[in-house]
Amino acid sequence: MSLYRRSFLAAALLGAARAHNIRRLSRCQALVYANHGDPSRVIQLKNVDLRPVGPKDVLVKILAAPINPSDINMIQGTYAILPELPAVGGNEGVAQVVEAGGRVASLQIGDWVIPRDAGSGTWRTAAVFDEDDVIAVPRDIPLLAAATLGVNPCTALRMLADFEHLQPGDSLIQNAANSGVGQAVIQIAAARGIDTINVLRDRPQFARLSDRLKALGASHVIKEDALRRPDLEELFKTCPKPKLALNAVGGKSATELLRHLQVGGTMVTYGGMSKQPVAVPTSALIFKDVKVRGFWVTRWKRQHSNGAVRATLAELCALLRQGKLSAPACAEVPLSDYRRALDAAAQPFAAAKQILIT
Amino acid sequence: MSLYRRSFLAAALLGAARAHNIRRLSRCQALVYANHGDPSRVIQLKNVDLRPVGPKDVLVKILAAPINPSDINMIQGTYAILPELPAVGGNEGVAQVVEAGGRVASLQIGDWVIPRDAGSGTWRTAAVFDEDDVIAVPRDIPLLAAATLGVNPCTALRMLADFEHLQPGDSLIQNAANSGVGQAVIQIAAARGIDTINVLRDRPQFARLSDRLKALGASHVIKEDALRRPDLEELFKTCPKPKLALNAVGGKSATELLRHLQVGGTMVTYGGMSKQPVAVPTSALIFKDVKVRGFWVTRWKRQHSNGAVRATLAELCALLRQGKLSAPACAEVPLSDYRRALDAAAQPFAAAKQILIT
Repeated sequence: MSLYRRSFLAAALLGAARAHNIRRLSRCQALVYANHGDPSRVIQLKNVDLRPVGPKDVLVKILAAPINPSDINMIQGTYAILPELPAVGGNEGVAQVVEAGGRVASLQIGDWVIPRDAGSGTWRTAAVFDEDDVIAVPRDIPLLAAATLGVNPCTALRMLADFEHLQPGDSLIQNAANSGVGQAVIQIAAARGIDTINVLRDRPQFARLSDRLKALGASHVIKEDALRRPDLEELFKTCPKPKLALNAVGGKSATELLRHLQVGGTMVTYGGMSKQPVAVPTSALIFKDVKVRGFWVTRWKRQHSNGAVRATLAELCALLRQGKLSAPACAEVPLSDYRRALDAAAQPFAAAKQILIT
Repeated sequence: MSLYRRSFLAAALLGAARAHNIRRLSRCQALVYANHGDPSRVIQLKNVDLRPVGPKDVLVKILAAPINPSDINMIQGTYAILPELPAVGGNEGVAQVVEAGGRVASLQIGDWVIPRDAGSGTWRTAAVFDEDDVIAVPRDIPLLAAATLGVNPCTALRMLADFEHLQPGDSLIQNAANSGVGQAVIQIAAARGIDTINVLRDRPQFARLSDRLKALGASHVIKEDALRRPDLEELFKTCPKPKLALNAVGGKSATELLRHLQVGGTMVTYGGMSKQPVAVPTSALIFKDVKVRGFWVTRWKRQHSNGAVRATLAELCALLRQGKLSAPACAEVPLSDYRRALDAAAQPFAAAKQILIT
C-alpha cells in the first residue's frame, strides 16, 4: 500500500470517528464531462457540490476507482446506457462510509462499499449515495481487489455458472484472455478444476504474458492464429473440447471459438472489441446445437436481488481470501493525474488496469 | 384420392388380410444412388432385394413419400448425416404394414407407420423395417398429411414449444414463411392465438401467396425488403414485438429478424437457404440479451423417447382432425416419374411439395 493511500485512509477513519464533530463535507473533486466525446478531451477535474446527507443516505469517501472499457464507451456516448449530462465518469470503485443518515440500517461508519449498479459516477473524491445503491464488502480483502470486484470478477463468475454446468475436468475457451474478465475467468476456473484454453492476439512479449497467465492458473495459452491451424487438434488429444466459449472480441475470433466448441456447447459474448458481429454458421446452430448467448453484468444485477448479488460477491471474497483470486494487474494513478490514466487505458495491449486513487 | 392410390390401397389391404397365404414380397422398386451428386443425375429407379422379415420386423408398402430439401442435400453429400452408399433416397413418408414378424408387439397388419429417424430410405415401393424404427400414426388423417407429418410439422411444433414460453397475444416472426415448416408454424401458432409475422422474398404472384398464407392463419405477410423500412414500426403499433424468430435463410434475412426481436427473445435457425452465416451484432447479445439457437428435428427425435415423439405426433393429429392444420400444398407424382418430381423440387419459389406416390 502506498504511503499516499495509507495516510489517506488514516485521515478518513479519523474523520469517520469524529463525524459528529467535524464540519460536514459539502464539496468534492470529480472527473466531469458535459459532452460525449474522446475522454481525454471532454473529461475535466472540477469541484462539485455534494447533496445533503438524507436519512437513508451515506456520505462516502471514494478510495479507489478503476477505468474500465465500458467507462470509456459511456463517455464516448457509444454505450447501451448513458447518464444525463453533465455527469461524473466511472461506474465502479470502493468507497468508505464516513457519515450515515439516521435511518440507515445496513451500513456503519468505516464500512467499505461498492456501487450496486452502473452509472454512479465513481471518479470523484467523495459522494452521497442512497443506502440501497451500495453494497458492503469486507475490509479484509485487498483494496485494489475491492475496487475491481463488482464488474469483471462478477462477470467471470456468473458466466462460468449460469450457462453450462461445468465440472472438474471440463474445459472452456476464451479470447481476450488477458482482460480483467479473462484473468478472473482463469483463476475461478482453475479453483474449480476446469481447464482453460486462453487465446491472445500476438503481441510484443507474448511469452512473458503467457507465463503470467499460466502462473494465474491458465491451462493453455495460444495465439489467435493458432486457432486456425490443424495442430490445435494436438491440444485436444489431452484436453476435452470446450463446453463453454467466452467471447469479448467478435468477428473471426468468435467464429474460431465456435468452431472448437463441443456439440451442444455455449458461446457467451460479453464484449465486442473488434467491432465486428459474431458470424455463426447455420450448420453450427442446426447440427452442432451450439447456443449463442450474451452476458451483461449490469442487467444481471438489475434482474437479481441484493441477496443474489451479495452471494456472488461473498463467493469471490472467499476465493480472494484463499489466495485463489487476485486483482488484475493494476497501475495506481492519483485522481489529479487522470489524463495520464485515460491515455494509458486507451493504449492497445494495455498491460495493467488503470486505477484512480483519491 | 387418385384412382391409382385407391386401387393400390385396396390391393395392399387385401394382401395384408391374406399375408399368410400369399407369396411374400422379396423385391421392390427403389430410387437408388451409388454416388453423391446432382439428384437428377445420380438417382436411378432400380429393383432391389428386401431382407427377410425377422421376428421383430415389419414388411411395409410405402404409400407416399415427400421430397424434402434435406433429402436433396443428403444425395448431394452436403448434409450433416450421410448414408452408406449405395443408398435409397428419402427420409420421410407413410407406409402400411403388410406383414409382421412373430414377436412384433406394437403394430398390426394394416397400420400406418412413419419412420422414427432420418436415413430410412423411403423412396421405394416396399421396405422391411425393425418395429422400433417406425411409429404408428392414426389412419383417420389425410394420407398426404401423414406422409409429411414427421419432419416439418414436428419441427414447427417443437420450435414453438421448446424455446420461448409463448402465450396467446404474443407474436413470432419467421422468414421462408411459405416452406413446409413455415406453413405449419402459421397454422399451429394461429391455433394457439399467437400472431405470426411472415416474411417472404418478393416473387411473381406475391399477393396470391400472401392471401393463401393468410387463409392458413398468417397475421401479417411482408416482403423481405420491408423488414428494412421504418414503416414496419407501424405494424408494431398493433402487434407486440416478437419473442421468437424462426430462421431458415441465414445472412441478412436472419440479421433483420434479430433486429425486430423483443429484448430477451430467441432466434431459432432450422435452415440456411442463403448459405450465408447468421451475423449477430455483439450489442444484440450483450444489451438485448437475444438468444441464438438452432433446431434439428432428427437430433430432437434421437434425444427423446418414443413416448415424447408419439405425444408430439398426437398433438399434430389432433390439430389435423380439428381442421386447424393441413398438409402443405402438395403435387403427387408417381414414383416412376421421379425425374419430374426432382426437377420440380429443385425450382426456386416452388409452390408445392413433391410427393412420390408408389
